[in-house]
Amino acid sequence: METNLERIKKDIEAIGEFTATPGNGTTRFSFTKEDREAREYIKGEMLKAGLEVFEDAAGTVVGELKGEIEGPVVMIGSHFDSVKNGGSFDGPAGVVTALEVARVFKEKNLKPKYPVQFVALIEEEGGRFGGGLFGSRAMAGKVTREDLDRFKDSEGMSVAQAMRDFGFNPDKIKEAERKPQDIKCFLELHIEQGPILETLGKDIGIVEYIVGIKEFEVIIKGRPDHAGTTPMNMRADALDGAVNVISKISGFAKEAAFGTVATVGKLNVLPGAANIVPGEVNFLVDIRSKKSECIEEVEKNIVSELEKVCREMSLQYEVIQKLHVSPVKVSEKLVDLLKNDCKKLGFSQEIMLSGAGHDAMVMSQITDIGLVFVPSRGGRSHCPEEWTDYEALQKGVELCYNLVKEIAF
Amino acid sequence: METNLERIKKDIEAIGEFTATPGNGTTRFSFTKEDREAREYIKGEMLKAGLEVFEDAAGTVVGELKGEIEGPVVMIGSHFDSVKNGGSFDGPAGVVTALEVARVFKEKNLKPKYPVQFVALIEEEGGRFGGGLFGSRAMAGKVTREDLDRFKDSEGMSVAQAMRDFGFNPDKIKEAERKPQDIKCFLELHIEQGPILETLGKDIGIVEYIVGIKEFEVIIKGRPDHAGTTPMNMRADALDGAVNVISKISGFAKEAAFGTVATVGKLNVLPGAANIVPGEVNFLVDIRSKKSECIEEVEKNIVSELEKVCREMSLQYEVIQKLHVSPVKVSEKLVDLLKNDCKKLGFSQEIMLSGAGHDAMVMSQITDIGLVFVPSRGGRSHCPEEWTDYEALQKGVELCYNLVKEIAF
Repeated sequence: METNLERIKKDIEAIGEFTATPGNGTTRFSFTKEDREAREYIKGEMLKAGLEVFEDAAGTVVGELKGEIEGPVVMIGSHFDSVKNGGSFDGPAGVVTALEVARVFKEKNLKPKYPVQFVALIEEEGGRFGGGLFGSRAMAGKVTREDLDRFKDSEGMSVAQAMRDFGFNPDKIKEAERKPQDIKCFLELHIEQGPILETLGKDIGIVEYIVGIKEFEVIIKGRPDHAGTTPMNMRADALDGAVNVISKISGFAKEAAFGTVATVGKLNVLPGAANIVPGEVNFLVDIRSKKSECIEEVEKNIVSELEKVCREMSLQYEVIQKLHVSPVKVSEKLVDLLKNDCKKLGFSQEIMLSGAGHDAMVMSQITDIGLVFVPSRGGRSHCPEEWTDYEALQKGVELCYNLVKEIAF
Repeated sequence: METNLERIKKDIEAIGEFTATPGNGTTRFSFTKEDREAREYIKGEMLKAGLEVFEDAAGTVVGELKGEIEGPVVMIGSHFDSVKNGGSFDGPAGVVTALEVARVFKEKNLKPKYPVQFVALIEEEGGRFGGGLFGSRAMAGKVTREDLDRFKDSEGMSVAQAMRDFGFNPDKIKEAERKPQDIKCFLELHIEQGPILETLGKDIGIVEYIVGIKEFEVIIKGRPDHAGTTPMNMRADALDGAVNVISKISGFAKEAAFGTVATVGKLNVLPGAANIVPGEVNFLVDIRSKKSECIEEVEKNIVSELEKVCREMSLQYEVIQKLHVSPVKVSEKLVDLLKNDCKKLGFSQEIMLSGAGHDAMVMSQITDIGLVFVPSRGGRSHCPEEWTDYEALQKGVELCYNLVKEIAF
């Protein structure tokens, strides 16, 4: 292979060191100390690979290899933020792919016709501010100046304030926007984060569809009363309402079928003491499916259950939309090129559905995308145990190198 | 009346200022800056009232008025910690009662036969370390040295460490223990924290029974997986398990009857991100009743539901006992004295059940207790809106002053 296993391993391990939770997985939220450290490492590697390095107005790191002509650019990369207590591969695998492809281009002194941009995107997970896919949405022109004030982290700090503190100017967010005519395609390598490739013993997953995602917050308000002196029939217990709704959600997802999934991953109880009846509960609902209709159906069922439960229990509720992305069909041309490259390189392949949203999904709004999966051990992801063997990752990097070489010349 | 309305008002307002959440109610956890400030104020007032002031080994503030004889002591007081975002009356009303009674004793130069101890207890709410009733349990000899290492706050700091940082020696905890022969009785004034006195238009509640309380923590463990790539039927979602159990709890309490209540007031979801299937959920269950059998019945139903749900959903669970106090019948002699004093003073009265656990409940294990309620506006408590009119509070203080005068001579 023309890519280098040791360099790939070194990058993954180095970036994995930049975590707010050492010993308990990777926690690298955007615009934090860990973001800064990882960012500096990536920029350093880009410079060593002879790229021209800059950061866009959203904070995404870009390393550019000039082409014979001005544009459109071939773009390759992924994100470098993580969830709370996640692993070292979700995101960085694709960033390291970009770094390694850039290094091989330099070694071989390849001068492409089209410029190639190697990118490291931020806040894809939404771990800090909710919503997610921030770097790619900014490129697709989907982040407004108002959004930067509206979305806040758990300490109440807005994206805008966090950007300012970090050295970016939120008022310039629109400058991150890319036009369709300026990008030839966006290629992303990502770990599968599911059990399919490992189960089938395949090297590479070539994604044909990306699921749509809808994320919304539910706020249920009752009345905080003393847990000892308030009779059961005089309570307005927000948690009692919430659990009655949430206990229905997995059933709604199963009914919708077509691989539809729905998850409540974050939930807060206020004020949050053993002897106070909960006055407020807020939680996030995440629904995903290959079919838009299935997402709508699950959401409709949840909201009508919410309406019913709150009416019966004298509670108030509010639903706040956080994220809505439609299912995406991946460019057939890129799928075909990837299939052929796999054959040429002798890698076994599987045509797949992506159950996770990726930056490529957002980028599909402005350009052709290609999305390559490599196997996840045990299908585990978003946890410290997340793992992809370096040899398996290298096959994906090699495939991407070949594809970029084909497209950029 | 012989007590002074203005002094009572000044005390309540002054102590209410010592909060970690100004503008959002009283948050005064034990062994914190706010504890220190309130403690210094209380000690200052005790000294002004001519008391000999010391702190016991658990951190409870004691002001003593010497008697003609060595003992046993008449004890009066309540606690000065608060829940998170609570009010200014739960606890302090009884501490201020003690301060005002001491001041009137000094003004009138009363020299009792028995020593009188005016006490300000700590960590009754368990807001910081869970469990609660700490100061009184230490007096009753129910706190072990091991407990001080075992119970931790949300930052993981043990009671022992917090005590050391604050200037107390956890190794001496057993010195806080009082013997039955050393205490004549314990008198506590508390706000009702429920709607009964206000609804009936009564001045004073004389408590005849205090409910028993059982508090335990439930930990449910599943597997944290990616919310997009893990099919619904391959999940071990700890929250899905928890909501199925919690949604049954209010029904269990209603079935048990006899005013039995059960509450889940605190719940955490881990790791706690929108796109991660919850790997762990922990929550606190608080069950209260006049009858021990009802508490046992609700607990048994919850645990068997937990067993069933976890078996069906491939989850693990653990139940950790935090607090168990039996229902208490208050001393008939003190109830009778309080009834007569109310008549003498012209206060309307109601014989009641206390739905909240109080330090008096624990003190009943080593001495006779008396427990006096004053009305709570709207029955609200454990919230910033908690309120008792100062004139209504003064009636309770006046009653306590009369009772102490009767018992101590």
